[in-house]
Amino acid sequence: MEQSSRDRLVELRRDLHRYPEPAWREYYTTSRIVAELERIGVDDLLVGPEVLDADARMAVPDDDELDAWHDRARDAGARSDVLERTRGGLTGAMAVLDRGEGPTVGLRVDIDALPITESTGSDHAPASGAFRSENEGYMHACGHDAHATIGVGVLEAVAESDFQGTLKVFFQPAEEVIGGGRAVAEGGHLDDLDHLLAIHIGLDHPTGEIVAGVDGFLAVRQFEATFEGESAHAGGHPAQGRDAIQALATAVQNLHAIRRHGDGATRVNAGVVEGGTATNIVAERAHMEGEVRGETTELKEYMSERADTVIESAATMHDCEGAVETTAEAPSAESDADLAAVVSEVAGDVAGVDSRLDSDDLGGSEDATYLMNRVQSQGGLASFVGIGTDHPGGHHTPTFDVDERSLAIGVDVLAGTIERLGENPV
Amino acid sequence: MEQSSRDRLVELRRDLHRYPEPAWREYYTTSRIVAELERIGVDDLLVGPEVLDADARMAVPDDDELDAWHDRARDAGARSDVLERTRGGLTGAMAVLDRGEGPTVGLRVDIDALPITESTGSDHAPASGAFRSENEGYMHACGHDAHATIGVGVLEAVAESDFQGTLKVFFQPAEEVIGGGRAVAEGGHLDDLDHLLAIHIGLDHPTGEIVAGVDGFLAVRQFEATFEGESAHAGGHPAQGRDAIQALATAVQNLHAIRRHGDGATRVNAGVVEGGTATNIVAERAHMEGEVRGETTELKEYMSERADTVIESAATMHDCEGAVETTAEAPSAESDADLAAVVSEVAGDVAGVDSRLDSDDLGGSEDATYLMNRVQSQGGLASFVGIGTDHPGGHHTPTFDVDERSLAIGVDVLAGTIERLGENPV
Amino acid sequence: MEQSSRDRLVELRRDLHRYPEPAWREYYTTSRIVAELERIGVDDLLVGPEVLDADARMAVPDDDELDAWHDRARDAGARSDVLERTRGGLTGAMAVLDRGEGPTVGLRVDIDALPITESTGSDHAPASGAFRSENEGYMHACGHDAHATIGVGVLEAVAESDFQGTLKVFFQPAEEVIGGGRAVAEGGHLDDLDHLLAIHIGLDHPTGEIVAGVDGFLAVRQFEATFEGESAHAGGHPAQGRDAIQALATAVQNLHAIRRHGDGATRVNAGVVEGGTATNIVAERAHMEGEVRGETTELKEYMSERADTVIESAATMHDCEGAVETTAEAPSAESDADLAAVVSEVAGDVAGVDSRLDSDDLGGSEDATYLMNRVQSQGGLASFVGIGTDHPGGHHTPTFDVDERSLAIGVDVLAGTIERLGENPV
Amino acid sequence: MEQSSRDRLVELRRDLHRYPEPAWREYYTTSRIVAELERIGVDDLLVGPEVLDADARMAVPDDDELDAWHDRARDAGARSDVLERTRGGLTGAMAVLDRGEGPTVGLRVDIDALPITESTGSDHAPASGAFRSENEGYMHACGHDAHATIGVGVLEAVAESDFQGTLKVFFQPAEEVIGGGRAVAEGGHLDDLDHLLAIHIGLDHPTGEIVAGVDGFLAVRQFEATFEGESAHAGGHPAQGRDAIQALATAVQNLHAIRRHGDGATRVNAGVVEGGTATNIVAERAHMEGEVRGETTELKEYMSERADTVIESAATMHDCEGAVETTAEAPSAESDADLAAVVSEVAGDVAGVDSRLDSDDLGGSEDATYLMNRVQSQGGLASFVGIGTDHPGGHHTPTFDVDERSLAIGVDVLAGTIERLGENPV
Repeated sequence: MEQSSRDRLVELRRDLHRYPEPAWREYYTTSRIVAELERIGVDDLLVGPEVLDADARMAVPDDDELDAWHDRARDAGARSDVLERTRGGLTGAMAVLDRGEGPTVGLRVDIDALPITESTGSDHAPASGAFRSENEGYMHACGHDAHATIGVGVLEAVAESDFQGTLKVFFQPAEEVIGGGRAVAEGGHLDDLDHLLAIHIGLDHPTGEIVAGVDGFLAVRQFEATFEGESAHAGGHPAQGRDAIQALATAVQNLHAIRRHGDGATRVNAGVVEGGTATNIVAERAHMEGEVRGETTELKEYMSERADTVIESAATMHDCEGAVETTAEAPSAESDADLAAVVSEVAGDVAGVDSRLDSDDLGGSEDATYLMNRVQSQGGLASFVGIGTDHPGGHHTPTFDVDERSLAIGVDVLAGTIERLGENPV
Repeated sequence: MEQSSRDRLVELRRDLHRYPEPAWREYYTTSRIVAELERIGVDDLLVGPEVLDADARMAVPDDDELDAWHDRARDAGARSDVLERTRGGLTGAMAVLDRGEGPTVGLRVDIDALPITESTGSDHAPASGAFRSENEGYMHACGHDAHATIGVGVLEAVAESDFQGTLKVFFQPAEEVIGGGRAVAEGGHLDDLDHLLAIHIGLDHPTGEIVAGVDGFLAVRQFEATFEGESAHAGGHPAQGRDAIQALATAVQNLHAIRRHGDGATRVNAGVVEGGTATNIVAERAHMEGEVRGETTELKEYMSERADTVIESAATMHDCEGAVETTAEAPSAESDADLAAVVSEVAGDVAGVDSRLDSDDLGGSEDATYLMNRVQSQGGLASFVGIGTDHPGGHHTPTFDVDERSLAIGVDVLAGTIERLGENPV
Repeated sequence: MEQSSRDRLVELRRDLHRYPEPAWREYYTTSRIVAELERIGVDDLLVGPEVLDADARMAVPDDDELDAWHDRARDAGARSDVLERTRGGLTGAMAVLDRGEGPTVGLRVDIDALPITESTGSDHAPASGAFRSENEGYMHACGHDAHATIGVGVLEAVAESDFQGTLKVFFQPAEEVIGGGRAVAEGGHLDDLDHLLAIHIGLDHPTGEIVAGVDGFLAVRQFEATFEGESAHAGGHPAQGRDAIQALATAVQNLHAIRRHGDGATRVNAGVVEGGTATNIVAERAHMEGEVRGETTELKEYMSERADTVIESAATMHDCEGAVETTAEAPSAESDADLAAVVSEVAGDVAGVDSRLDSDDLGGSEDATYLMNRVQSQGGLASFVGIGTDHPGGHHTPTFDVDERSLAIGVDVLAGTIERLGENPV
Repeated sequence: MEQSSRDRLVELRRDLHRYPEPAWREYYTTSRIVAELERIGVDDLLVGPEVLDADARMAVPDDDELDAWHDRARDAGARSDVLERTRGGLTGAMAVLDRGEGPTVGLRVDIDALPITESTGSDHAPASGAFRSENEGYMHACGHDAHATIGVGVLEAVAESDFQGTLKVFFQPAEEVIGGGRAVAEGGHLDDLDHLLAIHIGLDHPTGEIVAGVDGFLAVRQFEATFEGESAHAGGHPAQGRDAIQALATAVQNLHAIRRHGDGATRVNAGVVEGGTATNIVAERAHMEGEVRGETTELKEYMSERADTVIESAATMHDCEGAVETTAEAPSAESDADLAAVVSEVAGDVAGVDSRLDSDDLGGSEDATYLMNRVQSQGGLASFVGIGTDHPGGHHTPTFDVDERSLAIGVDVLAGTIERLGENPV
């Protein structure tokens, strides 16, 4: 890759880094990506509702929140036409290169940021290099700025190559809340894909290391549980109350006590609780935010059904009403070894790559699995590619940063793989 | 009272003490009482099913158990005719004195013993005096031998007096399991009573003290809860099991967590638990014996309904089937002050009485409450009379014994009260 | 009482009602009371730190909060000299009438308001009568405006009478948080009292009814429990976390499961809980606000010790650190029947009194018990007097209001009792 | 293998099947094995305490139980000399073939039976074939009769071969209670082994299938927990009791709630509970039998430490004393691929073998892991070999049976492997 291309990647990544936007609020980010895609020139360019099934979105914030970020994006210089097309939390984009006969290959990158306050430390490059977050309290602390940049870079590289076939690059919103993957998967644009590649940078792999096919995606369901009882004076009329906090406590205890499963790993967490109004009042209302996971989608379903039963029974036990609402979820998935083999082979020839792993476990959840499952269910192949990068702080911490050398490596590996697939379909 | 009468009381009490019989197995005891009543001569003498509503009995043992004690009673010398009439756990008796115009007064005494092994200590009078229990493992450890004796004594004393009216003495089985009171109350022989007196000896009151109207009866419900799940190998297939022990544990925790009530005292206990078959097997079955109580019948009902909900919800929570069965219960009751006042007044003139209390709290449960409520619901008066006795060991312990001087005191107070009621109905 | 006096009581009560101030922030209220006392003329007048043991205060807000109300009181017209003397949450006052030989009698009234938003309904007299709360979000919803008014009225009435002896009227802050009673009790001004009277208006008794000696004070302890664990990613490293929410849930369940006590009523409540930061993070911290009560101080201690053990064990069980801090507490107390008898006798002659009860149960908690116990421990007598008032809404609700006719009745009963005590010490 | 050898294997297996003996009571079994070994002729023959470290035994029954089975074995025809040497639960044996220079190879087979009542169904071969269990209530329901038989067969086959080296065959008692493995591992006879082979028949693999190196052994710890409180009358003095059943219930709930671990599978079970004496008595004592497991020994330790904390904290929480005692345990282990490769290679040439698996997961626990770890820690290799057999009923069920054709297959595979190791040490 030429230096000028490298510089452009860095420049784009830093601009995105300065304007981190959380799930469904990626207005500036989408605008900036659209501008890059138009610069490159693509055969088709879809935005927001043209890419997504809007009804399949999960964890969408309320209108006030969406509007506030819409205004903020305008102030930051987002284009009016893109802002108009994405209003209401309908962010993201998809670009198509149509280069004649050949396979249809998809690349999915995610673009949203996190509600984390970025470090101001002098050893934190974005701070010392003057591209620290302008949106105080929010930060690209998981490298999605690099993902979006690589997506643009791959598209440009393939556009300039002899690739035969069709390339679709998906810029997906709302991955951090597991909210966008399903909407893209059901948007209708995956159904002609022969191959799908998705990527993640870092994951504790150093710059120069490539994981050809990441596995170990835990299927996940996040939920909110609400317990409604009845308040009463705890001294005078303790039994006139129906205690939502007792229901909550019984639920928390028994959620963790859901039996382990012989078929594989499961997880459960009650991450946030709150309830009640005063020391001497029987609590009328209590609330929990929790999640269950499973090594397979079936195991997640097992946990999910048991969790529902626990919550409902805990409410009934204490004469309260219990309600559980799924806020987000994602299935498990597996990378196809055949496709991963191509990635690995190509990576072997990429400058800067000095280590290749066939596979490694994510040990967490990702909603790229919706897209992978969709493609695989139609006979296509999918692989989730890990692109190593030296990152000083851990993912989701204030000092997370990427080694910008990995941008070009990522573009070269992915563009190379896509070109190879055009030559020799798997 | 003449010395010969006193001697007869002592002799009868000691004979009953030698043959303690637990609930619904009072075959020898009934036979001995019948013999005494025939000796005295009464106007009517009903036995077992003639006194009880057999279907209203609670906590009846199985036939094998009943038959074994039937045989044992025969061996001890019980009369064949009485054995025949009481077969099948239909024990107890009622005697009637019909002495013309006047009020109808009832006296209720209970006659059953406890599954406690009696002390063999040289300072335990029944042991040193050679009238220790012949039924090893069973013992009159709550003074019902004295109660039955007083019942006979009162009948004899009233028979010899100028009493005007009708006296019915009820010899009730199965008080210790709260199993007999309802059956007597529904037997039909209480419905013409103007006054009901019931008695208890001891209760930490010394010889010579009379409590004219005991109160503070806790209404009680005893129950068995069963949890049915499904077994599985705990190592290989832990989630294929449905764990009855988890359901049990959740139930126990939440039974105790039933909210206290602003209207008065409540109680809850999970007294016996067992479940499971092996360390490495998910338990298919678990079982609990428990109870709830309340200062009033309404409070007992509150606890009872909450307990049912807890048990059912705990079962549902762990995917088990839960079942609750009431094994015995008794309501609360209150002694009538007007009737108690007569008792107290009469007691003031009885030799040996040196202390009188208007009232005191039982702090436990008694199924005499069924009879008291029945009589009171028809406009009659009832009082539960405490007859002090020095008792070396506590109630329900192996060294419990009564001071036999209290037998005559009890007879004099009760017979005197009944005679007074014949003269001056309250 | 003359009409002009009645009018003055109503006018004072309405002024206090317009400026409700919560615990330890009664700056305006204290200023207004001081002004009234100076108008009447007393032999001694102490303010704030002169009355209280400042170190014995409980549940004192932080300085910012105190300062904000200090400013607000100044704006409302509170006197600078009083504001200076009460700065830092050292509110309240005490007035002394010294009328020669005779008993020393204390009267305690409380003066703080509640964080409740007052009704604006047209049928709510303060709203339609233009004396609704000026401090939005706060309200005299328990009648302490009337208590302070009666305190002033009694002092004025006694000052004008032939009373022989010494009268101390205590205007106590911070009763609603059980925070001020101990500070007054330990302030040193109770130690020469022969008699103490405390009052409460309403309590579901109608205008014209007097309860001569309220009983049934539940001893109470309020506490905050904190659980500190360690956060971890719930999907990737669930066992690296030490879950503060699990500790909290175990504690809540087992607090309610503390065994009931045979000696009398107990209470427990976990009224407020919160913990955790995100669905997918093991919670590092959780917090509970709760309370225990007992029919006697001993029963409260029983509950309190058991609660400490439960909270500490729940923390240990889940490898967390647990801490419990008492935020407020109050003992139980009993009104002296001899003193209550004087109240009742006097009340019998007061115009407007048409019903007298010797006693009734409060069924809640009150920190007047600190003062009552202090006086009784030194051989004095104490009684807590209930002054009926028709109140449309319940205590602690937005529509609570008092029938202003009860102000004069209260003054007449209390002043009459104090005068009688001067004549005939009990 | 010649038909006469096959017949002898079947005859031996059937004899052992007729006399199933549970853990540490394998008196007849040991006697019969010794007789076979003497018939074959070995270079050294150790029995019971000569093989085991007696102090390292776990889960040994009490003397009465041991003596009863000692008598039973005598009645069945066990030899007096062997009975004498094994008295006191010191069962098992080891035979040595010393054939000059070459590797030292060990083979471990287990010999104990289960407390399961064998099927009498006509389609159950032992029943129709007249070799059903003579020890009613006990049964070889896991194929250890076949294991012992194969051990004898392998020794005979190797004795007749040109094997160069030393062979030790260990006949281990008490595998079913995880009680014997440690005692053999610490008996001192493993320390010179170059290779260790252990076997299990069945495991849902059909006749003709060989698993060269079984993996997935869950490390396990079985324990008994005891809770000691104090009894009290649940109606009269509920708070005087310290409730062992509440402690038990809290422990059960929180054992299951031990957090899952990110490093691999864990298990927990509370398999047996019992406590209390009567419905109306606060339980003085409660007891639990449970277990924890982990995919690795470290994970088992994690669970074990957490379980101890839970049990102790639950006891403390309810003012009881808690005690946990380990009754049995076993580590995890892994088969060495290099050794398994030899097994697989040899098996490829054995008549009757038609399927070979390199590895498969046990998904349960086995105390052969003690022996495997011991050998591996000294630089030796170990493999746990699965020998398929068609079994009509599942392991540990009344209809379990083995396909006797698998006896010869097992002998051929193992003897062949041992001979091959003599030729070409790994």
